[in-house]
Amino acid sequence: MTKAICPGSFDPPTKGHIDIITRAAGLFDEVIAVVVVNPAKNPSFTAAERIDMLRKSTSHLPNLTVDSHHGLLVEYVKRVNAVAIVKGLRAMSDFEYEFQMALTNKKMYGGADTLFLTTAIDNMYLTSGLVKQVASYKGDISEFVPAECLGDIERRLSGRNPSE
Amino acid sequence: MTKAICPGSFDPPTKGHIDIITRAAGLFDEVIAVVVVNPAKNPSFTAAERIDMLRKSTSHLPNLTVDSHHGLLVEYVKRVNAVAIVKGLRAMSDFEYEFQMALTNKKMYGGADTLFLTTAIDNMYLTSGLVKQVASYKGDISEFVPAECLGDIERRLSGRNPSE
Amino acid sequence: MTKAICPGSFDPPTKGHIDIITRAAGLFDEVIAVVVVNPAKNPSFTAAERIDMLRKSTSHLPNLTVDSHHGLLVEYVKRVNAVAIVKGLRAMSDFEYEFQMALTNKKMYGGADTLFLTTAIDNMYLTSGLVKQVASYKGDISEFVPAECLGDIERRLSGRNPSE
Amino acid sequence: MTKAICPGSFDPPTKGHIDIITRAAGLFDEVIAVVVVNPAKNPSFTAAERIDMLRKSTSHLPNLTVDSHHGLLVEYVKRVNAVAIVKGLRAMSDFEYEFQMALTNKKMYGGADTLFLTTAIDNMYLTSGLVKQVASYKGDISEFVPAECLGDIERRLSGRNPSE
Amino acid sequence: MTKAICPGSFDPPTKGHIDIITRAAGLFDEVIAVVVVNPAKNPSFTAAERIDMLRKSTSHLPNLTVDSHHGLLVEYVKRVNAVAIVKGLRAMSDFEYEFQMALTNKKMYGGADTLFLTTAIDNMYLTSGLVKQVASYKGDISEFVPAECLGDIERRLSGRNPSE
Amino acid sequence: MTKAICPGSFDPPTKGHIDIITRAAGLFDEVIAVVVVNPAKNPSFTAAERIDMLRKSTSHLPNLTVDSHHGLLVEYVKRVNAVAIVKGLRAMSDFEYEFQMALTNKKMYGGADTLFLTTAIDNMYLTSGLVKQVASYKGDISEFVPAECLGDIERRLSGRNPSE
Repeated sequence: MTKAICPGSFDPPTKGHIDIITRAAGLFDEVIAVVVVNPAKNPSFTAAERIDMLRKSTSHLPNLTVDSHHGLLVEYVKRVNAVAIVKGLRAMSDFEYEFQMALTNKKMYGGADTLFLTTAIDNMYLTSGLVKQVASYKGDISEFVPAECLGDIERRLSGRNPSE
Repeated sequence: MTKAICPGSFDPPTKGHIDIITRAAGLFDEVIAVVVVNPAKNPSFTAAERIDMLRKSTSHLPNLTVDSHHGLLVEYVKRVNAVAIVKGLRAMSDFEYEFQMALTNKKMYGGADTLFLTTAIDNMYLTSGLVKQVASYKGDISEFVPAECLGDIERRLSGRNPSE
Repeated sequence: MTKAICPGSFDPPTKGHIDIITRAAGLFDEVIAVVVVNPAKNPSFTAAERIDMLRKSTSHLPNLTVDSHHGLLVEYVKRVNAVAIVKGLRAMSDFEYEFQMALTNKKMYGGADTLFLTTAIDNMYLTSGLVKQVASYKGDISEFVPAECLGDIERRLSGRNPSE
Repeated sequence: MTKAICPGSFDPPTKGHIDIITRAAGLFDEVIAVVVVNPAKNPSFTAAERIDMLRKSTSHLPNLTVDSHHGLLVEYVKRVNAVAIVKGLRAMSDFEYEFQMALTNKKMYGGADTLFLTTAIDNMYLTSGLVKQVASYKGDISEFVPAECLGDIERRLSGRNPSE
Repeated sequence: MTKAICPGSFDPPTKGHIDIITRAAGLFDEVIAVVVVNPAKNPSFTAAERIDMLRKSTSHLPNLTVDSHHGLLVEYVKRVNAVAIVKGLRAMSDFEYEFQMALTNKKMYGGADTLFLTTAIDNMYLTSGLVKQVASYKGDISEFVPAECLGDIERRLSGRNPSE
Repeated sequence: MTKAICPGSFDPPTKGHIDIITRAAGLFDEVIAVVVVNPAKNPSFTAAERIDMLRKSTSHLPNLTVDSHHGLLVEYVKRVNAVAIVKGLRAMSDFEYEFQMALTNKKMYGGADTLFLTTAIDNMYLTSGLVKQVASYKGDISEFVPAECLGDIERRLSGRNPSE
């Protein structure tokens, strides 16, 4: 019984996030998508809203559950007894930051490994920040986010200043 | 009649910006320097001030006009019927961010291409943020900004906290 | 009358090359695709073969011609009086090498600028070396190279050791 | 029953390779370490020698087998019905190359995913090429390679020109 | 008599900082660790507290003194007549930012050079921001910071929102 | 008495090399420029020729000597009792390779540190390989190499195939 977690801000979830979660669910017996709550980041959506959007968008995955966590990620990993932390890696992006976090988490808890999946090529330029920016200018975001939460996202973000 | 735009924050314009605009003006029939207005970024200069500084610094370019835009860049590109978005690329910098924006813009509007020019080697370390930092400490910025707007920039920034 | 060149090894041409050439032809009045001949590189195809494949694959572009050059690229640029050298830039690749060549060429001849176009996202992983490697193992390369030269490439490369 | 492969040149295997293989064996039901044979690369060890060294160094892993393959990697993946290709990723290294190969393999065969594990921090600077270079000058490589194949490697490489 | 400075925010100092300072003290006759004060950055510790923590952690170095500076770094360099600015460089990090600052400082004052030391491999993932994040969640930071200031840091940061 | 070495292939020396050596000579009491001999690399100049060119180009530096070494660099460092290995770092280049070598050398011999100096901005694109390429096509290399060895380099390289 191998268990993995897919942590993230998911503020909001994009098609890229759902792709990574779906592929992780194909590799492990049980996967938990974890909304990491960081109040210092001024999220656009509450944790409850992000959990709800993730659930709507992943209802086709029987071995996936959705949860949230406030605190050090390794505490969560230890508590649920996961062996892997799965992250998507975009070619053009935060590789160094992710690598640093992977080494730090390994240092703080040796019992789990961070795995990186390459994002699908069509999602390579896709970030939550981009979605917010386009939505704030009332641009079309239907290609960027799961159909199940398109309405939720547009209602919240349309016309707002994109937070950087 | 090929038309290109040179978008940017220009907060304030540097010699590097003027170099890229000048070279773009040599490659296309008509070029528009576009001050992109993003209130979330807390600019140091108003859009009107940035337009004014760009006009002063580019008066020698007959095929260049200056404008501003608030909203998605591709909307502007479509409206003025430009075929190219010209950006300067510094060796040490935001390559990945620029690449991501180029792919996103292409996805949202296929009718224009993003072109990158390499900055001149003498401007390679030059950013608007650096200018603000040096000016806030009353350092000498005359090598970094166009002579035409040196006074404007010093008056505004001298002694202020450099915004990060 | 703005003239640009698209230099490359084109050993063999890929769909990525043809995409960049096509987009350059939409931006400039006249474009020359230039096969750069470097005997030290042990090419898999002769210059004549590469010219022939490029011509077959670009016959739909009325303002494009194909040529070859042996020697310093800037000599060619000067001779044909081009104002731009157009290169495709893949997100994951030789950015630094290309940047270095752009600065060097500018230093040796100030009359032309290097422009970078971002490759289309579907071609982002595509290189001539990859084509050679897949073809040498008799893999399917029809998605990677122009239909017009698929046969030529397969005949030459199938079963050969991929040169690194 | 999830099956994964760990492909590589392993010319020779390093402690970094063994670490990645060991961690992969902890994540999947069955793992195959695959010596990828590429005659164009002029390896220092034959495929049989590399298989032998890997077997000696991984005899503590009951769910690991060792094999070799000559040809496209995705053919092997399909044949053994693996769902994952596991690669180690060093902070300072071939990220871009690995990313490109992952996308290419995904394009050629959608049935398996490439997973990246971060190398342990102590192995971060470790490559087969480094081992060859140090060994050729009769330097001490005992910290770099598995104890089980130290003798094999020293006998072969000591005093030879390090191939680049 | 060669004199060097080690500038930084040191907010708070980490074991990585102390390692770089110690090695710099082994290379130059006299070294000054300089707390660079930038009010715009909202530091977690006052300049006086940072100076105090640095002094406690470096009391074993006879040729090291600690100071602070508010203003352009090159002004400080000129005033104390230093010939070198020593910075640690982590493999995964701000290389480009540091490079840009080194070129800028050279441009503003040609009398001193920036030297980069590579951080020890064990400190490679270590940043002040990481320390703050772990401490804010009451995680164990004793491996990350000098023993001499562990108590000071825990008292200040425990339970606070990690500033991003 | 601090002693440093400046190792390199110097095949041939460029103005960038001489700049780094000169600056190192300003920071340390004694500096040795070391031609690292690696027969596997097929150099264009013999070790004796490279030593001769370095001597001619650095005769103005009283505390500099020139030497060559065949073998592991750390053996040389230990033998001459140097405390620092000084390398130039170009913005666009082999940062990762240099970093890896620095960590490896530190692992093999803890008694010396690698220091990186940033190359002067005018030399940032300059490599020995570039010099060879331009010279082989009889291009003008007088801006790239020290005046003292311009003739030597032109005589050797003019009209030859640039080795990659």
